[in-house]
Amino acid sequence: MRGVILAAGEGSRLRAYSDRPKPLIPLLGLSLIERNILALKECGINEILIITGCYDAEIRDYLGSGRRLGVSIEYLHNPQWKLGNGVSAHTFQQAYRENEKYILLMADHVFAVDLLRAFIKEAEKLEQDRLLLAADNRLDQVYDVAECTKIMAEGGPQAKRLGKGLKDFNAVDCGLFADSGLLQKALAQSIDRGAYALTDAVNLLAAEGKVNLHYVNHYWVDVDDPAAYQHCERVLLRSLVPPKDGFISRTVNRKFSLRITRQLAATKITPNQMTVISFLVAAASAASFAFLNPLIGGLLAQLSSILDGVDGEIARLKFLQSSYGEMFDSILDRYADYLIVLGMAFAWYSSTHQTTAAMLVSAAALTGLPLSMLFKEKYRKLTGKAYVPEINDGRLHYLPANRDGRLFIIMLGGIFNQIPAALILLAAVTHLQCLFRLRAVRRVL
Amino acid sequence: MRGVILAAGEGSRLRAYSDRPKPLIPLLGLSLIERNILALKECGINEILIITGCYDAEIRDYLGSGRRLGVSIEYLHNPQWKLGNGVSAHTFQQAYRENEKYILLMADHVFAVDLLRAFIKEAEKLEQDRLLLAADNRLDQVYDVAECTKIMAEGGPQAKRLGKGLKDFNAVDCGLFADSGLLQKALAQSIDRGAYALTDAVNLLAAEGKVNLHYVNHYWVDVDDPAAYQHCERVLLRSLVPPKDGFISRTVNRKFSLRITRQLAATKITPNQMTVISFLVAAASAASFAFLNPLIGGLLAQLSSILDGVDGEIARLKFLQSSYGEMFDSILDRYADYLIVLGMAFAWYSSTHQTTAAMLVSAAALTGLPLSMLFKEKYRKLTGKAYVPEINDGRLHYLPANRDGRLFIIMLGGIFNQIPAALILLAAVTHLQCLFRLRAVRRVL
Repeated sequence: MRGVILAAGEGSRLRAYSDRPKPLIPLLGLSLIERNILALKECGINEILIITGCYDAEIRDYLGSGRRLGVSIEYLHNPQWKLGNGVSAHTFQQAYRENEKYILLMADHVFAVDLLRAFIKEAEKLEQDRLLLAADNRLDQVYDVAECTKIMAEGGPQAKRLGKGLKDFNAVDCGLFADSGLLQKALAQSIDRGAYALTDAVNLLAAEGKVNLHYVNHYWVDVDDPAAYQHCERVLLRSLVPPKDGFISRTVNRKFSLRITRQLAATKITPNQMTVISFLVAAASAASFAFLNPLIGGLLAQLSSILDGVDGEIARLKFLQSSYGEMFDSILDRYADYLIVLGMAFAWYSSTHQTTAAMLVSAAALTGLPLSMLFKEKYRKLTGKAYVPEINDGRLHYLPANRDGRLFIIMLGGIFNQIPAALILLAAVTHLQCLFRLRAVRRVL
Repeated sequence: MRGVILAAGEGSRLRAYSDRPKPLIPLLGLSLIERNILALKECGINEILIITGCYDAEIRDYLGSGRRLGVSIEYLHNPQWKLGNGVSAHTFQQAYRENEKYILLMADHVFAVDLLRAFIKEAEKLEQDRLLLAADNRLDQVYDVAECTKIMAEGGPQAKRLGKGLKDFNAVDCGLFADSGLLQKALAQSIDRGAYALTDAVNLLAAEGKVNLHYVNHYWVDVDDPAAYQHCERVLLRSLVPPKDGFISRTVNRKFSLRITRQLAATKITPNQMTVISFLVAAASAASFAFLNPLIGGLLAQLSSILDGVDGEIARLKFLQSSYGEMFDSILDRYADYLIVLGMAFAWYSSTHQTTAAMLVSAAALTGLPLSMLFKEKYRKLTGKAYVPEINDGRLHYLPANRDGRLFIIMLGGIFNQIPAALILLAAVTHLQCLFRLRAVRRVL
């Protein structure tokens, strides 16, 4: 299946926000059109065709053959883009391969990858004589309904009528289509009649009952004006928080990490570089503890915990996830934990005469650190399912024994200069969690 | 598919070895017939029918409804078992359900579970008008060929002729059949003619070209006499060694653990109990080190390493594997490692004045212990494949950083009273292995 991206318009309303052509306006590190291309690639669509109009040269220069993005890009230019987006969409007729099914989307819309994936899955099953249109019937959640093309839907669901000015409607158009040639015929027909908007052609098909609707369940934003741009940034950032996040991570760390990610998105910094930075901050925390500056040590530990979220956020935001990155992150996290606890142990040991107590407690804390990950990965091996503390641990998940909780304990220990207490607590929660889990899974495994 | 087990004969040649009915003779903790039932269950066959003869009451009393083994068992008795095993096999005709496909096997044969699994897989594809017979054409590996029923095979492969006294042959009969009624008809025919052996009926079908052969690739033993019994013990024990075993495990530990498993097989000791015993021996090793008896500490560490193999061996030998057992074992192994290294650290720390060196080296050794498992489990998550050190580590796999190697280092450290050197070596190999692996998988992930 090819992906056809409509990038012909002028996008004058975003002019005030950036002087680049609208599809090339950067949003959190990727231009709008790049984000669409990478999202399609994530869904398995590697053949892209871009219909240009107003900014033909700029877009070609920027994206080229698509090699940089790992896809193949072709271009079609519509010199008559000013007439309407239906004329631009119809330009694709020149490159259309008989009976081909393709996805058509707007360059200036941002879609959740999961939305595209679900849509493409349904498109694959679409009959030849139907057009599939992504529609959103969660009207209370749709941003700026006034600006949307409305849909009156019925039955299956099918679109009955579409229009920006529709009074009676129960969904809105998301700017995402799947077609097997039907739309191109309708476009020819409607252009013949002097109606140049894409909606005109879709309306022709809707009148014949040929427009199937796919109701979306994930976010999408039509980035039309500065307010929508800012809304889209917020939505994208929010989407970076995993559905099941640790308690401290959710309530504390993400508040900061998302801000940092927002700032770093436009830079060239990679997720693996962020992993290293987070590790170095942890090493600095360890050194601060060891050189008897627990306040700085504690704060740096928490900063490292926050930065530990940023690498994943940048990876998800900019389509830079990799297995190696995940492995690198999880090993470096273990070393970061180890170093900080060693720094604390050294502080305790060197500043008091409780050497045996310091040794034993520190050993207990050190050995407790990797248990949570060990248990979770083994559980995954044995059951094929992820062990999600927020679900599988039951009440136990309030025990701050996962990484966000552990580093929070360390921060508190540093701030209040209670290193022995923090180490005792760390040792207790990590080992207790492991033993409780071992007992709890007895029934499950 | 039902499993039909032929357990009608007297098995007089094993009388000398045990006074129990042959199918009930225990071999490494399970009677021959129990082993077959549990192996069938492992392959998804839960409906068992046993044809008894000589020892009807004894077998029924011993196995009952099969509930204890987690299967359902029915019985058919052939009072005329003395006539021949064909007559016994034909008893099944009474319980045969029209068009049913069933597996027929000899109670006194021992089959590798993988052999049964492959056979059943092929049996599922067998046409209605064919008999499938498991045959072994690895004649140089077959135990006591003289005692076997020989097969002259050709083509597909199909059996042309069978017979114990066959001069020309290229395979032997493993005593394992899959039938869809054809065999029952042939048995009726051959019994009518006064030929009472199972082989007689199979020969009738072979002459018509209706006996397909399945060549086996795993072990099987016809436990016919004391020598075969001992051979079977050896084969079963050998099969307990995983195909990819660590170097120390393969060359040292298994030599002892298999002997221990052999002794413990007949007892009621469970794999999880063995896991606990192995852990307690590790704890005793830790205490010995801490109380400055490194020789005993080192030897107990190695004993614990050996016993760590026994739980898995008993589990595989007696069909007692469980996910919980694996989880329990892997967590307790970590604790065992931790305790021993702590015992060594305490010895170093309390017997010299090198407290800082002892602390740092011990911390490095402690933190290195779980890295191998952490890495391997994460690798499995990311790739869906097991990380097998003997394959994936390349030359690095000679680094004694996996559990068998680590405990061997500890033993040497104890025996030669070189605790600091052992801890330094432990720290070095574990962390180096982790860093090398992290570098090596960069290309793979």
